[in-house]
Amino acid sequence: MRDVAVIGFGMTKFGEIWPTPLRDMYAEAAQACIKDSGIERSKLQSAYIGCMTSGLFNGQEHLASILTDYAGISGVAATRVESACASGGAAFRAAYLEVASGASDFVMAGGVEKMNDGADSTYCLSTASDQEYEVFHGVTFPGLYAMMAHAHMNQYGTTPEQLAAVAVKNHVNGALNPYAQFPMEISEQTVLGAVRVAEPLGLFDCSPVTDGAACVMLCPVDVAKDLGKPIIKVIGSGHATDSIALHDRADLASLPVVKLAAERAFAQAGIGIDDVDFCEVHDCFTIAEIMCTEALGLFKNGQGGPAAAEGVTARDGKHPVNTSGGLKSKGHPVGATGIAQICELYMQLTGRAEGRQLSSPRIGLAQNMGGSGGSSTVHILEVVS
Amino acid sequence: MRDVAVIGFGMTKFGEIWPTPLRDMYAEAAQACIKDSGIERSKLQSAYIGCMTSGLFNGQEHLASILTDYAGISGVAATRVESACASGGAAFRAAYLEVASGASDFVMAGGVEKMNDGADSTYCLSTASDQEYEVFHGVTFPGLYAMMAHAHMNQYGTTPEQLAAVAVKNHVNGALNPYAQFPMEISEQTVLGAVRVAEPLGLFDCSPVTDGAACVMLCPVDVAKDLGKPIIKVIGSGHATDSIALHDRADLASLPVVKLAAERAFAQAGIGIDDVDFCEVHDCFTIAEIMCTEALGLFKNGQGGPAAAEGVTARDGKHPVNTSGGLKSKGHPVGATGIAQICELYMQLTGRAEGRQLSSPRIGLAQNMGGSGGSSTVHILEVVS
Repeated sequence: MRDVAVIGFGMTKFGEIWPTPLRDMYAEAAQACIKDSGIERSKLQSAYIGCMTSGLFNGQEHLASILTDYAGISGVAATRVESACASGGAAFRAAYLEVASGASDFVMAGGVEKMNDGADSTYCLSTASDQEYEVFHGVTFPGLYAMMAHAHMNQYGTTPEQLAAVAVKNHVNGALNPYAQFPMEISEQTVLGAVRVAEPLGLFDCSPVTDGAACVMLCPVDVAKDLGKPIIKVIGSGHATDSIALHDRADLASLPVVKLAAERAFAQAGIGIDDVDFCEVHDCFTIAEIMCTEALGLFKNGQGGPAAAEGVTARDGKHPVNTSGGLKSKGHPVGATGIAQICELYMQLTGRAEGRQLSSPRIGLAQNMGGSGGSSTVHILEVVS
Repeated sequence: MRDVAVIGFGMTKFGEIWPTPLRDMYAEAAQACIKDSGIERSKLQSAYIGCMTSGLFNGQEHLASILTDYAGISGVAATRVESACASGGAAFRAAYLEVASGASDFVMAGGVEKMNDGADSTYCLSTASDQEYEVFHGVTFPGLYAMMAHAHMNQYGTTPEQLAAVAVKNHVNGALNPYAQFPMEISEQTVLGAVRVAEPLGLFDCSPVTDGAACVMLCPVDVAKDLGKPIIKVIGSGHATDSIALHDRADLASLPVVKLAAERAFAQAGIGIDDVDFCEVHDCFTIAEIMCTEALGLFKNGQGGPAAAEGVTARDGKHPVNTSGGLKSKGHPVGATGIAQICELYMQLTGRAEGRQLSSPRIGLAQNMGGSGGSSTVHILEVVS
């Protein structure tokens, strides 16, 4: 396999972007990414675009064809990739493999979702769970994660205050992110006192409904060197699946799919979690961040909640998690999220994270999850020059 | 890049399969493919699944996760790939690149669509065209291809009888295919006298609404040799996009996206169209087969119709096209079609095509198209032992 580097990124601001069509959001991120990469548009050979459900949200399939056309890059090989909320991570992996294979030198991995377009977002999102055995019986995503939260609380004593600590911390970070949908700090009392969505999860335990797009450019490390780019190398790529339906799992209080994807990425990279300086993880709900940090091996099972409450995952903690503000504060345009995580890794590793910049991080990890743990990707990036 | 081979296939019968859920159709094809490949299920590392719009047809996204679970292969990296009716071709390409990269040895490329599940299939399919500038104004797919047919007739003198010759020929072939939805011969008069769908296209100029699934297994050529398999090598893979909306095209009577994808595949393979023994092409409508054979270079522009009428594309003609029966007779479960084309290539190249077997073909080409020419893949397979 050829060594592969990330050499640029582009993002829209995340939020409720009612006036901007789906195609224009992608075009904005793609053009920014091409410009940031400093390559000629004609050099681009291929594009992968993560999107969960443009069919249901926007009545538009054949997505990669129309989006690349509007981005001014028609003609390239272009493929939409879907793995529910892990669609972005899956698109990054596909782009990585195409460059690694030698088939193409410049491949853009993108993600987009326009969730505010008139469709019922609760229904659209529910299609990431089991249609016949979960959705049909009335379960929604807050309901699924509420069941997982109850199991975690029951098994390990995790508290509402520990859940709230995740939200408070991510809003501290997101307040420093110009791309964030909700860039403001919030108090523990705001989280604990918020209207309930699905007990024990309140409004501020949930990531928002978001419009947005993000892109990153990949090329061989050798080509990146010739271009004089800082070398941000992809050292590990892991992808795994598990049963979608919660009733098919042995344990509701853990996420084996994240553990498996991480094991694969670490095996390729030849490192362990202790070598990682910071992580972006999939905090679609506060309980998800706690369970993901445990599955990645940052903390033992049951220790994710106390660690969040003690500041271990804060920007100045031992294991910074979601310096971008995470899905909670930055927003969660589902197909774009996995790529936005890679954007944050790239910004941090190149010293471009502005007010939320960590001190010279060398290795970052991005974990992107589909549904309630039916799929997950893990990617590890390292500064090698 | 590593050399890659196809070592097995599995398909459901195509048709209106009302009693079988989406997930079970995929499981049937996947299990048949694993069995035909002769590998242990645990060897499988990754799966790509082409599907156009399970969200709209079946209310189910996160598709690769749930399908691999029901197929008994949960845990593998699994990704759904979408490029409208070229989703299967795009899935095959992604699987090919993953094996070629060296990341995985055994990758299964699949495709599935359950179109008979209660949804409005005309609306679902229309999402492969431009939602804002075509669908919104009432255009359907027969309408789009009818405009292309009118342009072709006007520009080159193509006749209804030449269109009918495509349907008659494909039903002759499909009658010999046990997987076909409509395995019966039809007369020219049946085609010409059929109820009109969108003038000049009648019912028998249109491919049907179909349920079905198909899978093929890929591995490195070296591994295939160790397994004692016949070596059916992927020698070319091309993928391209064009504008979706017809009003953005310079010419309605040609398909530049097919030409571009073919040029890329031929460049990789180091051969030309004259080296190809037989083709599967995307005959979603009779006019599409004529335009695709021209774009591939089998015939000059305007000569595709006469060639079909003269039997050049018949099984015993100089350039056999759609020995499987094509989308017209075999059926067109949109996400599965591109993989079913590869299955036909594999069957022909390994001498397993039963009553429709060609005489010792060495090189086959599969061309799979998205929408009205917004995307296309071209793959070339060769017998190398």
